[in-house]
Amino acid sequence: MAETTVTIESTLTALIEGKKYNTLRDILITMNPSDVAAVFEDLDETALPRLFRLLPKELAAETFVEMEPESQELLIRGFSDTELKEVVDELYVDDAADLVEEMPANVVKRILRQADPEMRQMINDILRYPEDSAGSIMTTEFVSLRPKMTVEEATKRIKRTGVDKETINTCYVTDKGALIGALSLRTLILAEDDAVIEDIMEPNVISVTTSEDQETVAQMFSKYNFNALPVVDTENRLVGIVTVDDAMDVMEEEATEDIEKMAGMAPSERPYLHTGVWETWKARLPWLLILMLSATFTGLIINHFQNQLAACLILSSFIPMLSGTGGNSGTQASVAVIRGLALKEIEFSDTARVIWKEIRVAVLCGICLAAANFVKMILVDDLWLHNGVTPWVALVVCLTLVCVVFIAKLVGCSLPILADRVGFDPAVMASPFITTIVDVLSLLVYFSIASALLGL
Amino acid sequence: MAETTVTIESTLTALIEGKKYNTLRDILITMNPSDVAAVFEDLDETALPRLFRLLPKELAAETFVEMEPESQELLIRGFSDTELKEVVDELYVDDAADLVEEMPANVVKRILRQADPEMRQMINDILRYPEDSAGSIMTTEFVSLRPKMTVEEATKRIKRTGVDKETINTCYVTDKGALIGALSLRTLILAEDDAVIEDIMEPNVISVTTSEDQETVAQMFSKYNFNALPVVDTENRLVGIVTVDDAMDVMEEEATEDIEKMAGMAPSERPYLHTGVWETWKARLPWLLILMLSATFTGLIINHFQNQLAACLILSSFIPMLSGTGGNSGTQASVAVIRGLALKEIEFSDTARVIWKEIRVAVLCGICLAAANFVKMILVDDLWLHNGVTPWVALVVCLTLVCVVFIAKLVGCSLPILADRVGFDPAVMASPFITTIVDVLSLLVYFSIASALLGL
Repeated sequence: MAETTVTIESTLTALIEGKKYNTLRDILITMNPSDVAAVFEDLDETALPRLFRLLPKELAAETFVEMEPESQELLIRGFSDTELKEVVDELYVDDAADLVEEMPANVVKRILRQADPEMRQMINDILRYPEDSAGSIMTTEFVSLRPKMTVEEATKRIKRTGVDKETINTCYVTDKGALIGALSLRTLILAEDDAVIEDIMEPNVISVTTSEDQETVAQMFSKYNFNALPVVDTENRLVGIVTVDDAMDVMEEEATEDIEKMAGMAPSERPYLHTGVWETWKARLPWLLILMLSATFTGLIINHFQNQLAACLILSSFIPMLSGTGGNSGTQASVAVIRGLALKEIEFSDTARVIWKEIRVAVLCGICLAAANFVKMILVDDLWLHNGVTPWVALVVCLTLVCVVFIAKLVGCSLPILADRVGFDPAVMASPFITTIVDVLSLLVYFSIASALLGL
Repeated sequence: MAETTVTIESTLTALIEGKKYNTLRDILITMNPSDVAAVFEDLDETALPRLFRLLPKELAAETFVEMEPESQELLIRGFSDTELKEVVDELYVDDAADLVEEMPANVVKRILRQADPEMRQMINDILRYPEDSAGSIMTTEFVSLRPKMTVEEATKRIKRTGVDKETINTCYVTDKGALIGALSLRTLILAEDDAVIEDIMEPNVISVTTSEDQETVAQMFSKYNFNALPVVDTENRLVGIVTVDDAMDVMEEEATEDIEKMAGMAPSERPYLHTGVWETWKARLPWLLILMLSATFTGLIINHFQNQLAACLILSSFIPMLSGTGGNSGTQASVAVIRGLALKEIEFSDTARVIWKEIRVAVLCGICLAAANFVKMILVDDLWLHNGVTPWVALVVCLTLVCVVFIAKLVGCSLPILADRVGFDPAVMASPFITTIVDVLSLLVYFSIASALLGL
């Protein structure tokens, strides 16, 4: 994790070993909390709490938020109640809610006991929302203004209440709790002191409801270039805001999840090196098992055509090439479509366009591959290796190749769209699953063409 | 692309057909520029310029930025010089630079002729930087303050110059051009009027140089939760800033690129449906060809063991299952490692930990798969289908399975790290490439074990 340069790391290590705590403190306070956290992650159980206590209150809380749950737990267990209260008081409420979700029950109890009643209430409010919903990633600490305020009054209000808010770059205007407008700090600064908020606010505010999926929320940030997005309840009452840094985390997390699902793994919650062997095993085994057992069908087909295969054994040596090419062609199409669906570039109504495009790409790719393969089989297999490949066998393999690419692209592009339509996650329809289907179909085609052309 | 609800879209279509331009204008000005752009993308060549002219100046420019290059070109070709100047004047300089990069030469000439000299200079400055560098995505419109200013003076300066800046949420403090501090608008607002900037600024500013890779820049945003990141030249002079919205776009783009590369495709610059068939064909064919031709090796191995295969033909029916399981196991490991590398969770120094983890996961998965497969082969193939599978054959297949999973996980996790180390893109080392290597190795193992145990 550590991204600081080697020189800084080795310096710190030397200072820790030499117990130069004053110097250490002087260095740490110049560093960004994320970098401090990265350095702290590499410390052992005794050094970590000692160094953590060197940090000033605010930096301590900010560093704490950036650390891995394991280290957070270690620190909390070592904290006195007063120390714990100091850290919890400095946390933003969405970070506090994340922490409460990650920690074991007895640690959670201690945290909630140290949080002041208002904070405890806000944490509980956030925890009520379903995982991966807008409500679960929002913060309830935002600045709200009244429509009739003047710019001067609004600025005073922000100065009075803004210190504890996660962002004041965008303020929201509410009337009896209902969201009626938004105002960037920029507009406020650039406006005349006696201007009235409702005259300078943006009245058409885009908002999401608490139950909105966090992936959609992240997409909206990237579409609209927001710094913050207001979250309302079903009656359009403003209950929180999602900030762009949380949206970025969600985006990264969702991309990782999609990539993992495409590769036939259950998505993991933590970074690779922080996931245990058993956890990784559990995430990977199911798909491997399913796909292995479903390969029974390919076995059955080969078995069924055993006589043909025995009569022309050379056919067997092209099976891996055919199934590999089919798998790769299908993966290309499915992954392109899955990503397009995730970024909302492709919708169900585009199905015909997608299929028509893939058909043309498939024909082009299939013909090129078949031509290249024909030349290769004649030159290498027939003329050089004399391994029983006749022009007829080459023809069988190359015709099959065209069909395989065609089938693979077609299955690859249409299955994810169908999955999306009926409410399944399209990412799960990626390579491994499609490869198996394509394998079965291409073997059937291969042996059928071989039987017909070679008279087996 | 359109994400607005059906009702709004059909209303707009009806209004366009009825030529109710005043009503249209009233609706459009309540909409977010991204949504207007989405609606406009679906218009035909004659309706688009007409509707675009309905928009007020600022909304027009903001909408223009959000449109696809094809539509932008169409609009520019229809613009009078005055109209073009109006749009160009409203653009932020980084968007203008993007536009200039996308348009054909004769359109670029017109754009640069309409830009005022200062803008033209800034566009050219940005275009000098290599593609995908921090310099190429930064904007040169930022607020810079002097260290000796008071808060009151700084606020005045921001009010005077801030209107044209892309963001004023973070201001930078420079001394003779050198970056010496950063100050959020929030701190400024919350500070006393007579406080001096250098006393309240954050003196430890994290910055990047103009040549830094844009992927690293995006990573820094997600690591440090920045709203903007200053870009300096080699002498630490502040030359521009990257804003979080551009970082988000880069992040999405880089995730898409990685996913495409992992699936054996050349990364595409545009959305799926905006890429032509030839372009897609060009992006996909190379890897398919390479992998098809490299499958020659698997063919050679099967050929080499043709006598053994003829003596025990049932062995051939398990080749697809073995190569499929190997491919899937390898993909899982490689994709997990590639993503870890991309997110900087894994570094070269972690190689031993990664390999040791994958070895244990491989042994666990291999044993489970082999056990399940042994049961399946005895029950289904031997007792039910009587297709010549003896317990000895089952043993050969299952032993091979354990080796295949082991080899696949080992190759899958180590190749991306090695690639990253020697400066290749690890994403290219993903599934297709590893599958081919694993195929060759597992066939060798399969036939060796079969020869030994079955005495072939």
